[in-house]
Amino acid sequence: MEIISKKTPVVVNMTNYLAMNFNANALLAIGASPIMSFYDKEMEELVGICDSLVINIGCLDDAQIAGMRVAAAAAHNSGKPWVIDPVGVGASKARTETAVELITEYHPAIVRCNASEIMVLHGTACKTRGVDSVEPVEKARSCAREFAAQHGLVVAVSGAVDYITDGEREAEVRKGSPLMAKVTTMGCCATAVCAAFAAVLPPFEAAVQAMDLMGSAGEAAAARSRGTGSLAVNFIDELSLAK
Amino acid sequence: MEIISKKTPVVVNMTNYLAMNFNANALLAIGASPIMSFYDKEMEELVGICDSLVINIGCLDDAQIAGMRVAAAAAHNSGKPWVIDPVGVGASKARTETAVELITEYHPAIVRCNASEIMVLHGTACKTRGVDSVEPVEKARSCAREFAAQHGLVVAVSGAVDYITDGEREAEVRKGSPLMAKVTTMGCCATAVCAAFAAVLPPFEAAVQAMDLMGSAGEAAAARSRGTGSLAVNFIDELSLAK
Amino acid sequence: MEIISKKTPVVVNMTNYLAMNFNANALLAIGASPIMSFYDKEMEELVGICDSLVINIGCLDDAQIAGMRVAAAAAHNSGKPWVIDPVGVGASKARTETAVELITEYHPAIVRCNASEIMVLHGTACKTRGVDSVEPVEKARSCAREFAAQHGLVVAVSGAVDYITDGEREAEVRKGSPLMAKVTTMGCCATAVCAAFAAVLPPFEAAVQAMDLMGSAGEAAAARSRGTGSLAVNFIDELSLAK
Repeated sequence: MEIISKKTPVVVNMTNYLAMNFNANALLAIGASPIMSFYDKEMEELVGICDSLVINIGCLDDAQIAGMRVAAAAAHNSGKPWVIDPVGVGASKARTETAVELITEYHPAIVRCNASEIMVLHGTACKTRGVDSVEPVEKARSCAREFAAQHGLVVAVSGAVDYITDGEREAEVRKGSPLMAKVTTMGCCATAVCAAFAAVLPPFEAAVQAMDLMGSAGEAAAARSRGTGSLAVNFIDELSLAK
Repeated sequence: MEIISKKTPVVVNMTNYLAMNFNANALLAIGASPIMSFYDKEMEELVGICDSLVINIGCLDDAQIAGMRVAAAAAHNSGKPWVIDPVGVGASKARTETAVELITEYHPAIVRCNASEIMVLHGTACKTRGVDSVEPVEKARSCAREFAAQHGLVVAVSGAVDYITDGEREAEVRKGSPLMAKVTTMGCCATAVCAAFAAVLPPFEAAVQAMDLMGSAGEAAAARSRGTGSLAVNFIDELSLAK
Repeated sequence: MEIISKKTPVVVNMTNYLAMNFNANALLAIGASPIMSFYDKEMEELVGICDSLVINIGCLDDAQIAGMRVAAAAAHNSGKPWVIDPVGVGASKARTETAVELITEYHPAIVRCNASEIMVLHGTACKTRGVDSVEPVEKARSCAREFAAQHGLVVAVSGAVDYITDGEREAEVRKGSPLMAKVTTMGCCATAVCAAFAAVLPPFEAAVQAMDLMGSAGEAAAARSRGTGSLAVNFIDELSLAK
């Protein structure tokens, strides 16, 4: 992806253990330079050399939360864009409290989530069931708009139709394949790709470009895949071939 | 897999770092909804929303063990089926003590292991060498039967011929490919698949169905694979295509 | 790989979370038996049953560092070869201090790194940018030679041309593909493969054989890959087919 690779942004990726390898390969495929760590004692230095930051709460523990606070504060204080993925928020108090604290204290540029997650963040009662969304993306749009406006950030909600808003502007991406939801950490990957674009574009444009690339790559990959195993592989191939 | 996907069970998967991505993709491929965490502070809530639980001791540390106790207790107290994979038990005191404690205190529905591991658990002297089994599965059968009867659970021993017993009933699965042992966390994956089936079937039937699906998918995948890299990918494809 | 598989060495692999699955599959593909753990309470026992050890500092935390000290000491005291991958050394004080301490206290057989990393270890000022090397491998050669001679170990520097030295002898490997740098943990994989060879050959010969196998497999894999996703898969296939 030329817009990324001509800068080769360093993306510090604090993400869950499932996502690390797949997401690092996605970032490398589009021309970014990923670095993965949770270690509180080095996060300030790592954020110091990065161009953008991902915080993904998919596999929390006390040590990770400590590292996330240091990293989010460092990004906020230095004006570097950071993206949060509130994986499974609402499924436990720890997830909800961590996501809310990080967003309200350290102001991410983008919240990249699914429909259930933005509704939990918005405070709307909704049915959460594990880490997969059970709310149609449409219902979540008003929550996303209000949350974006209230917190001065961009919300990118993935679903059959992706929805991106900064509270005023709105965009839709109608691409992709339903099979993408059967590849683990595909959503986390969207978050990482948002962060790579946020290193070279303003947050709203970054999120739209990222979701568009995810959809295009996923659709092309699905067309040549026998099942969900080859979809994951072909998806990285497509990212690495994107102009 | 229709029997799984019509319920879409939430499977909480406390598994080793190697297995997480591959096993999550396997669970998604058969229609389950995986959620992965070790965090003691959220395990009670996560087990509360799950249909079954996996505990895999492949990469232990103190924090994981704390989380495993909370999760196993929550599953036991709420009557939810859980499956243990005693990876490398016998290779260290920490592994042996953790596996024995979890089994005797919190009563899993299924122990999914290899021949060496069930012999260690049974207390039979046997040669353990890292995490790969060096005992033929046949020798482990009497250990499995006695252990199953004594603890009131199902033991599923993988090998060239898989063996499943609840202490009285016995089943064999003669499928698969020797190449499966060359794909990391294939055994852990069998454990995760056992847990998905245990959410919709009684433990003995669940273990038999799971090992049968593993063998069928592995055999079909091996037939179309050039080496062990493509075997891992084709295996997930086969799971995602299984009826 | 017959020279490996006829011994099936147990390789204890303390590596970063990204690398674990891919590196375990690489070790299995060449006929080694990987075991992965960071747990300080079991590292002495695990090193006791291993034939070689990897320490990779790619995703440090306090618990990992504690485990690494126990493992490195156990390997050193029992005369078992161990290999360090100083991932991103120079990017944070924690990485630099950990790498330097482990090398100077516990004397690895091989340092497997990129050009920037050996220059940091050598104390030469050089530009480090995340975990990817920005120095041409040529500039790092004199650093590698001096560092190897001073510490009595082998340094294997990967790059467009790989360079291996024990301070006196030198070897080059001119194989591989530039696309290999776009697959995450390919360098970590070289480190793991070095450790497998170090279980059956002296360190210098082990490093040369390992880098040669990496280059051959990567080159063959690149020739049949559409993008970087299939490259990772084909690379493991090639390793599993290597004689």
